Amino acid sequence: MKRIALDMDEVIADVYPKFLDLYEAEFGYRPKAAEYEGGKVYDLPNAYHLRNHLHDPSFFSDLNVMKGSQEVVEWLTKHFDVYLITSTMEFKNSLVAKYDWLSRNFPCISWRKYIFCGEKTFIRADYMIDDKGNNLEKFSGKKLLFTASHNVAETRFIRMNNWQEIKSYFEKELAATRNP
Amino acid sequence: MKRIALDMDEVIADVYPKFLDLYEAEFGYRPKAAEYEGGKVYDLPNAYHLRNHLHDPSFFSDLNVMKGSQEVVEWLTKHFDVYLITSTMEFKNSLVAKYDWLSRNFPCISWRKYIFCGEKTFIRADYMIDDKGNNLEKFSGKKLLFTASHNVAETRFIRMNNWQEIKSYFEKELAATRNP
Repeated sequence: MKRIALDMDEVIADVYPKFLDLYEAEFGYRPKAAEYEGGKVYDLPNAYHLRNHLHDPSFFSDLNVMKGSQEVVEWLTKHFDVYLITSTMEFKNSLVAKYDWLSRNFPCISWRKYIFCGEKTFIRADYMIDDKGNNLEKFSGKKLLFTASHNVAETRFIRMNNWQEIKSYFEKELAATRNP
Repeated sequence: MKRIALDMDEVIADVYPKFLDLYEAEFGYRPKAAEYEGGKVYDLPNAYHLRNHLHDPSFFSDLNVMKGSQEVVEWLTKHFDVYLITSTMEFKNSLVAKYDWLSRNFPCISWRKYIFCGEKTFIRADYMIDDKGNNLEKFSGKKLLFTASHNVAETRFIRMNNWQEIKSYFEKELAATRNP
């Protein structure tokens, strides 16, 4: 089975609604996507301190699941060796919250396949699905960029705009393996 | 820089004294090393339930540091790209305790280099130092087995009996790189 290194934040976990809530609670206004395109919500003027909420143990507990990801990830686990790799180490308090969120929302991925790390340069896999160019650029396999506001200008990787596109991509990969 | 994947339990953290304490507290007797050779302390008759202490959040908080490991690991980080990779995911409660133990006892290793995982099959590195044959056998680089009671019969890997031997080994590796 070919191996997939699958990222969590902004790929299967939707972090934006929470940052938009935090922004709105403080500034009394909910920014439109076009306003923070090219960056994150906390890159808006005077908002960088909102990033500190990532140290809050509850931040990761109730994140939304990215639309369509549960069904497609479950399908992927039947055809590929899926590792869930997430940069947690800057935020020690996220460790247990992320573990619980994953167990609850993605029971198809065993804890044996969780990788909590800092950098991701060490991973050996055939595919990486990630929203960050600096993770993908050091990866040796096929690099799939999941669209997020901060990466809209990125052109170096295979772009995936949603989970249905990911399913279509891997259906083709499977077909190519069966009928090379 | 060449990369080393360095294990934690029974390599830099000495787990045995704690299991011997737990065994002695329950059975009123401290087993000799020869009695549990080929296995772990909890593999002794009627003692397997002692393994459940691995679920205790405090188990990993105050483990002894393996003799000589701090000095040699610090030296290694100057010459190699050292990743600390530890199987934590079976024991969710160990995540934060291990993080704290590592930060306190091995400040020379940045959190950027921590890898907390289940299986270790995904790692891409030049060397692995581990006490478990099933981790080393799937690794593609040079496989260094750190001696522990349960692996004394293992003959497939390069055996390291203590941290001084590890330093000598890597001094030779460095010299070979400089004068190939």
